[in-house]
Amino acid sequence: MDTETTDEIITATGRALQKYGYANLTMQRIAEESSITTAAIHYHFDTKEDLLNAFLDDLIKRFEAQLACEARDPRERLASFLDAVYTPSETGDDDFPVGLMELKAQAPYHNRVRERFLELDDMMQSVVASIVRDGVDAEHFEEANPGEVARLVTTLSNGGHTRTVALGENPARTRQLVERVLELRLGWTPNSEVDA
Amino acid sequence: MDTETTDEIITATGRALQKYGYANLTMQRIAEESSITTAAIHYHFDTKEDLLNAFLDDLIKRFEAQLACEARDPRERLASFLDAVYTPSETGDDDFPVGLMELKAQAPYHNRVRERFLELDDMMQSVVASIVRDGVDAEHFEEANPGEVARLVTTLSNGGHTRTVALGENPARTRQLVERVLELRLGWTPNSEVDA
Repeated sequence: MDTETTDEIITATGRALQKYGYANLTMQRIAEESSITTAAIHYHFDTKEDLLNAFLDDLIKRFEAQLACEARDPRERLASFLDAVYTPSETGDDDFPVGLMELKAQAPYHNRVRERFLELDDMMQSVVASIVRDGVDAEHFEEANPGEVARLVTTLSNGGHTRTVALGENPARTRQLVERVLELRLGWTPNSEVDA
Repeated sequence: MDTETTDEIITATGRALQKYGYANLTMQRIAEESSITTAAIHYHFDTKEDLLNAFLDDLIKRFEAQLACEARDPRERLASFLDAVYTPSETGDDDFPVGLMELKAQAPYHNRVRERFLELDDMMQSVVASIVRDGVDAEHFEEANPGEVARLVTTLSNGGHTRTVALGENPARTRQLVERVLELRLGWTPNSEVDA
């Protein structure tokens, strides 16, 4: 399969989903958001469902890559996690908060969609828990329950996403809240200097 | 307007929204969920939008009534707030987590829907902030920033709602998390005895 073409189709899917909503998403509209014909899209993806699953797989893969932080210091890894979750991409090309929210609402009806959100959640919680564990071990952080901090950070990120979509709130508000939580739980915030 | 009829239409709207989703919600399907004819529904509500606005108004009104706690003790008021947010109603009749999530995803496109979610959010934050303020004043709670605790509790409730819908998670998991947050911030959880 031609990677460049499928990449373009997947990006166009995100744009069309954000623009028209899940219910009004058609292969035709996806084609209009790209330089690819409807026939070519059908050649690569049998159904809209296949395409949405590929879109979610791609989203998870890209998020995973963003989280694959080179740094070994847990404080740097935590700062980079927050950047990945709360900083909009520079191109804005892969920010589909409304589309993503609509897909979440589809999860109860589509098993494969639910599985992907469970996978994403599991990944987020694992990353945070491992950072907290390492930071506590290295005495960069105060004693804390890694699983509980991970669940707290992840649930706040879920809530922040809702607030962006439903209330039109700036995600920075939730980031601020999370940083304060981390300050109280770990005795450290990403704002503070690593070498301080 | 006949209150009993409009109440029945509004309840049927919630059921149909939960069952068919926003995109597939029709006056016909709402009629099928009630004992009322499509013609009668059209007589009471001009458009699907009017009906959804009435549905949200009703939801806010009922939630407000649930929060209108008789108790004066801030500890009882906090426990009753958590019950209102996290305990499913006994009949299950007014639990529409998926439908509500879909409406949140519609907020960017419908100003009146967004206004209602902003109103609901404002109410939740005000209630929690006022409980925290009173509890700190009465020395039932440790010193805390009422606005910050209110935002934290509300954002976690937003996140818990998403987790129920997207992941199929039991809301009790988020409640547990919120109670732990309150324990650390206020030195008190709703599990503890008020007279202890």
